[in-house]
Amino acid sequence: MKFSKNLNNLIDSLSILPGVGKKTAERMAYKLLRTNKEKVQNLSDQLNKIITDVSRCKICGIYLDREDAELQNATDKHLCLDDGRDESVVCITESPSDIYVIENNTNYNGDYFSLSGNISPLDGIGPDEIGIDRLRVRLAKGIVKEIILATNTTIEGEATAHYIGELCKDYDIKVSRIAFGVPLNGEIGYLDSDTLSHAFQARKEI
Amino acid sequence: MKFSKNLNNLIDSLSILPGVGKKTAERMAYKLLRTNKEKVQNLSDQLNKIITDVSRCKICGIYLDREDAELQNATDKHLCLDDGRDESVVCITESPSDIYVIENNTNYNGDYFSLSGNISPLDGIGPDEIGIDRLRVRLAKGIVKEIILATNTTIEGEATAHYIGELCKDYDIKVSRIAFGVPLNGEIGYLDSDTLSHAFQARKEI
Repeated sequence: MKFSKNLNNLIDSLSILPGVGKKTAERMAYKLLRTNKEKVQNLSDQLNKIITDVSRCKICGIYLDREDAELQNATDKHLCLDDGRDESVVCITESPSDIYVIENNTNYNGDYFSLSGNISPLDGIGPDEIGIDRLRVRLAKGIVKEIILATNTTIEGEATAHYIGELCKDYDIKVSRIAFGVPLNGEIGYLDSDTLSHAFQARKEI
Repeated sequence: MKFSKNLNNLIDSLSILPGVGKKTAERMAYKLLRTNKEKVQNLSDQLNKIITDVSRCKICGIYLDREDAELQNATDKHLCLDDGRDESVVCITESPSDIYVIENNTNYNGDYFSLSGNISPLDGIGPDEIGIDRLRVRLAKGIVKEIILATNTTIEGEATAHYIGELCKDYDIKVSRIAFGVPLNGEIGYLDSDTLSHAFQARKEI
């Protein structure tokens, strides 16, 4: 039988999405063929736009639209920050998406700094590869008085947190790490042993 | 904080994919921002191409590229068929994707006909809405001698199969339904009761 090459190409292309294997890509492609053409066109256009019109803020590292990035590049003031936010506190994350999650789920009211991943000497990734050089420049300005480390609890995340902790001593900056332990509304019976051991070691007197 | 509108638009657009909710769309969008730009561009282009360059074969209903569809429209011969395939046997499916699955997993060597879904009177979907008018035209030509019904075992799929079975009597065509029962390599202990009851009712003497 003769099948559409364009359809096969689309199935291949969809596999760049995370968690999408061949079977899921096929299901998606056939669904897209039955979807309103305008919606598919819209998805195609939006994909194009993130290539041409999205870049990262040179100060905090979140993704900005082109106009906002241009405005930001023309000034030293951090334009991502709304009025009234505390510039002297900076929360450090592994990726811009973690900033998005923190912003949407907490009432944290300070500034942010996103690294590009974690230090991983075995993979040849040192401090400057993940943006700690930019962090150093920022700390040297003397505005930041407190750092909150929100990297993950992986070995690399911990190593990165430790490295930045040591760095902050040079600038006499208060540093804290977000708390790890039993998730709220979580059931202790279903927890993994690492989390549970940590929760016991890090117990607090009441 | 100021977040990219383009990124938010992309997250919304990705939700048209089947099985993709807000959380998954977010994860996909952030992954795409870290993906090679050429690959993202490629995905965008392929989405565009299925809008402009893919249409369904007027005879069997599978998806064809534009050039193939134009060639097909200019002739009555069924060009999707490779040489040596049996035009007198037609397998009927609910959707073009089912043809793709049958073609890739069986050694069936006949022709196909894809409906557009199933008869569903409650939703106002009658025989002509799913393409049975086109099927009637095809059967009237006298080339088809046998029909294999491969619609699903849902109530609508069974109703559609029954309807086509009756229709074939008018044209004196042999009709069969693909077999339903315990899947090969399946464990009987894990089967649903409908399948198991059917397997008992449809047992074969050996």
